[in-house]
Amino acid sequence: MTTTVTPWDVEGSVDYDKLIKEFGVQYISDEHYNYLKELAKEKGLEEHIFLKRKLFFAQMDLGKAIQDHKDGKPVFLYTGRAPGGSMHIGHLIPFMFTKYLQDLLDCNLYIQIPDDEKFLFKKDLTLDKIEEMLLSDLDDIAAIGFNPEKTFIFRNTEFMSNMYPLYLQTAKKITFSQARNTFGFENSSNIGQINYPALQIVPTFFEKGQCLIPCAIDQNPYFLLQRDFATKLGYNKNATILSKFLTALTGPNGKMSASDPSKAILLTDEPNQVKKKVNKHAFSGGRETLEEHREKGGDCSIDVAYQWLYNIFEEDEKEIQRIYEQYSSGNMLSGEIKKILIEKINNLLEKHRTQKQEAKENNLLEKYMKTGELAQSMWNKKF
Amino acid sequence: MTTTVTPWDVEGSVDYDKLIKEFGVQYISDEHYNYLKELAKEKGLEEHIFLKRKLFFAQMDLGKAIQDHKDGKPVFLYTGRAPGGSMHIGHLIPFMFTKYLQDLLDCNLYIQIPDDEKFLFKKDLTLDKIEEMLLSDLDDIAAIGFNPEKTFIFRNTEFMSNMYPLYLQTAKKITFSQARNTFGFENSSNIGQINYPALQIVPTFFEKGQCLIPCAIDQNPYFLLQRDFATKLGYNKNATILSKFLTALTGPNGKMSASDPSKAILLTDEPNQVKKKVNKHAFSGGRETLEEHREKGGDCSIDVAYQWLYNIFEEDEKEIQRIYEQYSSGNMLSGEIKKILIEKINNLLEKHRTQKQEAKENNLLEKYMKTGELAQSMWNKKF
Repeated sequence: MTTTVTPWDVEGSVDYDKLIKEFGVQYISDEHYNYLKELAKEKGLEEHIFLKRKLFFAQMDLGKAIQDHKDGKPVFLYTGRAPGGSMHIGHLIPFMFTKYLQDLLDCNLYIQIPDDEKFLFKKDLTLDKIEEMLLSDLDDIAAIGFNPEKTFIFRNTEFMSNMYPLYLQTAKKITFSQARNTFGFENSSNIGQINYPALQIVPTFFEKGQCLIPCAIDQNPYFLLQRDFATKLGYNKNATILSKFLTALTGPNGKMSASDPSKAILLTDEPNQVKKKVNKHAFSGGRETLEEHREKGGDCSIDVAYQWLYNIFEEDEKEIQRIYEQYSSGNMLSGEIKKILIEKINNLLEKHRTQKQEAKENNLLEKYMKTGELAQSMWNKKF
Repeated sequence: MTTTVTPWDVEGSVDYDKLIKEFGVQYISDEHYNYLKELAKEKGLEEHIFLKRKLFFAQMDLGKAIQDHKDGKPVFLYTGRAPGGSMHIGHLIPFMFTKYLQDLLDCNLYIQIPDDEKFLFKKDLTLDKIEEMLLSDLDDIAAIGFNPEKTFIFRNTEFMSNMYPLYLQTAKKITFSQARNTFGFENSSNIGQINYPALQIVPTFFEKGQCLIPCAIDQNPYFLLQRDFATKLGYNKNATILSKFLTALTGPNGKMSASDPSKAILLTDEPNQVKKKVNKHAFSGGRETLEEHREKGGDCSIDVAYQWLYNIFEEDEKEIQRIYEQYSSGNMLSGEIKKILIEKINNLLEKHRTQKQEAKENNLLEKYMKTGELAQSMWNKKF
């Protein structure tokens, strides 16, 4: 890929070098990438496209987690999702990658559903509305195909009694100053918001082993804070493996948002809707006129279709290289690159729908939440 | 009692007029006292000494609670105790009075055991230590003799899952400013402390009826805060009925403290220990020499034996008047008034021990916490 410009590096709206510094994290090193690649080979898996294309690009203490795994010490994964309903493709990324890591590491995975968080942070949101969104989300998450005996999905409101003692120990270690400096709380913030960071940190203490958290970089502040006091409580400092934001369909300005469902690819979109949305809303790096496009070529660095193909869909190195060259040179038109993307998206969504159906038929959600081996042990666990 | 000086009014260390203003509450009116007296008569009960002697002296919206009770609308009681172990006589006061109110009003009662609070507020206290103290406290509370079908005693750590949705609604309504202004939080306060007021307020929303809270006046700030937003959540503003602090055995400087058990009367003290403690530590209003005492008389306004007899033990108006006159005139010596007190205390403790034993034999604690009618309905309740 040496001749291909990585779209993220040249993209104007997000400066990842700056983010790395701001968030107090490091880039994933070649050594890390190589180890994960080797591990994949051992397991008969490919290197994941999110690693190959560095969509997951940053980390804290990933080397420690890798070393522990090498040494046969326990490592566990933790991620989560605040209920939002109408999950879009961007929401799938951490879960798809987390499943891959679980396959690689053959380890326990905890998925927090903070059904309390959104309620505390969104003025007009009710608990009933959250309940509704959450049920839809859970079906999508169950479709990912995590190991049913080694995965525990829990809602904060349900698991609170069990994890409350751990919460207390955590909350006691975080001062108002620290929370305010990290999350920017104000005098008008409600006291539940101020308290919330403790709840997101708690699952990093579910086991004594090394916690590794795959998530988008914006969640890292919680886990940076955890490192200030984890060892005082007798646990490991958590490690993270962090993704960039997936560029929104409408252009390279921040995260894809489901707040305007007409402009995001929802997991429930039918093939025709996907086609319409991509053709209508996908921000294009193509030129104004056919002539200009043929002459100057498309601009891959801002073209959402290209970026999505590069980061998520087109695993084949030669093929993504070909698309890059064809589009950049003007041989491939905007409608043509979009057509490739539409097909890839629809394949993914079709697979997701099938897996969602299978998950329902196999009561996977119940296993993740109640009856699986890990779930059962968590409901019986005294912290 | 017109000729007897109420000790609290003249006591130098606590200015109750000032407290009333600071806490934003009102004195209990003659009308309130009279209504409760009439109600007692109807139920075949005496006016409680804590009311007669105005140990319970202040209130918020007590008139509203009384009116609701008159109108046959639901009223419920709520009080609590943070686990401290080694309960002393001062700790019994709100519980004894709460039982009396439950008998008067024949209503539901909720007793919160905030096993989280002390952990968050005391630097070196562990959850294990709290567990130990709490078990001892629960036996003492069960000895009071609340109605087993209408009383629910709950530990926050155990009941958290059930009350969590109510907690969320409460926490969302309290800003950091409000909490800080009320409780004086600082930058170094931990986020669990800042969050805690929501948890103490939650039980005021356990029912839609009128909540009435018997407690010492220092707990009122929580319940003043509740009144800012209760109606927005669809509940009543809570009412309180507030006691003064019981003067410490060692003198009129603040609350009795169990932190030095040698200087407080613990519920576990044997008759001989009580005798020794009172004789050795009870702050005396007697004079330096026998001659001076006979001449000038004892000072009831600072004499702890007199104050305890007045406020807690000697229900008979003529007898307390007699003691006042005899002691003030110098006819009664310090050792003599102490002897009266020692007997009263030992009677109370003997009764308490018997009731504690009976409570154990009848598994009362299990009824209060799990199997009683109210307890069962609370464990099944969806907030």
